[in-house]
Amino acid sequence: MTISLNKARTIIRKTLAKGREMDFKPLSVVVLDAGGHLQAFEREDGASPGRFGIAHGKAHGAIMLGIPSSAQMARAEAQAYFINAVNGVFDGKLVPVPGGILLRDKRGDVIGAVGVTGDTSENDVIAGVAGIEAAGLIAQA
Amino acid sequence: MTISLNKARTIIRKTLAKGREMDFKPLSVVVLDAGGHLQAFEREDGASPGRFGIAHGKAHGAIMLGIPSSAQMARAEAQAYFINAVNGVFDGKLVPVPGGILLRDKRGDVIGAVGVTGDTSENDVIAGVAGIEAAGLIAQA
Amino acid sequence: MTISLNKARTIIRKTLAKGREMDFKPLSVVVLDAGGHLQAFEREDGASPGRFGIAHGKAHGAIMLGIPSSAQMARAEAQAYFINAVNGVFDGKLVPVPGGILLRDKRGDVIGAVGVTGDTSENDVIAGVAGIEAAGLIAQA
Amino acid sequence: MTISLNKARTIIRKTLAKGREMDFKPLSVVVLDAGGHLQAFEREDGASPGRFGIAHGKAHGAIMLGIPSSAQMARAEAQAYFINAVNGVFDGKLVPVPGGILLRDKRGDVIGAVGVTGDTSENDVIAGVAGIEAAGLIAQA
Repeated sequence: MTISLNKARTIIRKTLAKGREMDFKPLSVVVLDAGGHLQAFEREDGASPGRFGIAHGKAHGAIMLGIPSSAQMARAEAQAYFINAVNGVFDGKLVPVPGGILLRDKRGDVIGAVGVTGDTSENDVIAGVAGIEAAGLIAQA
Repeated sequence: MTISLNKARTIIRKTLAKGREMDFKPLSVVVLDAGGHLQAFEREDGASPGRFGIAHGKAHGAIMLGIPSSAQMARAEAQAYFINAVNGVFDGKLVPVPGGILLRDKRGDVIGAVGVTGDTSENDVIAGVAGIEAAGLIAQA
Repeated sequence: MTISLNKARTIIRKTLAKGREMDFKPLSVVVLDAGGHLQAFEREDGASPGRFGIAHGKAHGAIMLGIPSSAQMARAEAQAYFINAVNGVFDGKLVPVPGGILLRDKRGDVIGAVGVTGDTSENDVIAGVAGIEAAGLIAQA
Repeated sequence: MTISLNKARTIIRKTLAKGREMDFKPLSVVVLDAGGHLQAFEREDGASPGRFGIAHGKAHGAIMLGIPSSAQMARAEAQAYFINAVNGVFDGKLVPVPGGILLRDKRGDVIGAVGVTGDTSENDVIAGVAGIEAAGLIAQA
């Protein structure tokens, strides 16, 4: 199973709504399917031009390795050369800071990933988790 | 000036609605800003995984060269080696068949581009132009 | 749903067995999952070193575009510049000659793709289809 | 001399069997020939999509440098910039943590390499060495 466009839309809208509610900086939100392919993306007005690449890299690394980007950050703190090398394997499409969140269904299967960027990494996670839960899915952040 | 997220959403929704109305195959729609950076994207359920790359290449080539992808196709028919070379210049991010549409405001300025893929190139254009006009913008397809 | 390793193994073994039965040249066979990611691969002794890239490109292009590589060949015959451009989009990972075969389950959903290379493209297809059917799956070649 | 497909299959099967016996997470195993080219690969159900790249990078770096990936990790601990640079030389296809194991024949010649990923690097090595020894070859891990 993989994420539907309808669920992806809900995640993005609710993530952005949480950002507005919390007065975060303009956010960008990507939703990838279980194979790491782009399902939907939105970048708020005022966000810088390169935000797709950052949001995508957080989510793409999560799908490829099967762990959220926060766990990649922990690994990068311990073994920077490992994460550098994996970044090379995935052609730069991996950003090891919080905000790349795995989407799981009720059976625990990974059905996609969400990447959020724009405010601090911690705030990116708060917004993304709110969006995912609003869509009735389980977030592994 | 550049396209707003709000306008981008309208374009995508109306493009997809046109596709459903015409019974096209599942569509994917990208909206880029005036600098060629991703503003929004949606891929309908049932579309193949690589559709972001195709939609993006149509719109990205349009922004980079300042002409719609249909005009690139005409050039490719006459001088395939030129378009092949330009594809190399832009690192593969150019797809010279119809469906990459320039967005212009009422003064005629380019404020972004839309890329549509999923059905025939001609039908991709029909859906995209309908979406752009529904958003009150001028399409150069 | 996506292809299981067990099914992938069966496809590879039966494809290679068909090649031996027909006295084809040494074959290489790749099985990708529904997201285009490598599930299994085998290269027979005597096959040239670069055969993974060819087998992979046939199957990867099929997954990304949602059509078998034979249909890409037809498009390349009509519009070489289009297939050249798409090859750029997918970073070279697309080989538009027969032998990239979509795997469908009984409902018609794409659950992966098989790429075969080593003999003529037509013979590559014969072997691959035999392997897929031996695994109880539907081949779109 | 280089590894045969038959030996490569045995290595993969026995590596995966060891992983099941030890209750490791789902493993992915690549076998490269003496020239660093893919001979065979299998990814167990439940492994994340990007596991081929990781397994491949471990084995590819081992072949290219002629030392197991554990020795590359030691070098990375001492001189991260060197391993980062070598990663660039090999276009990202080098992962300097344990699990990239050189295959040697009885005369000591390198005839290929095995890359294992999925559990901890240490456990990846345990499974890979078991697989190689079951095939009657000598592992340099």
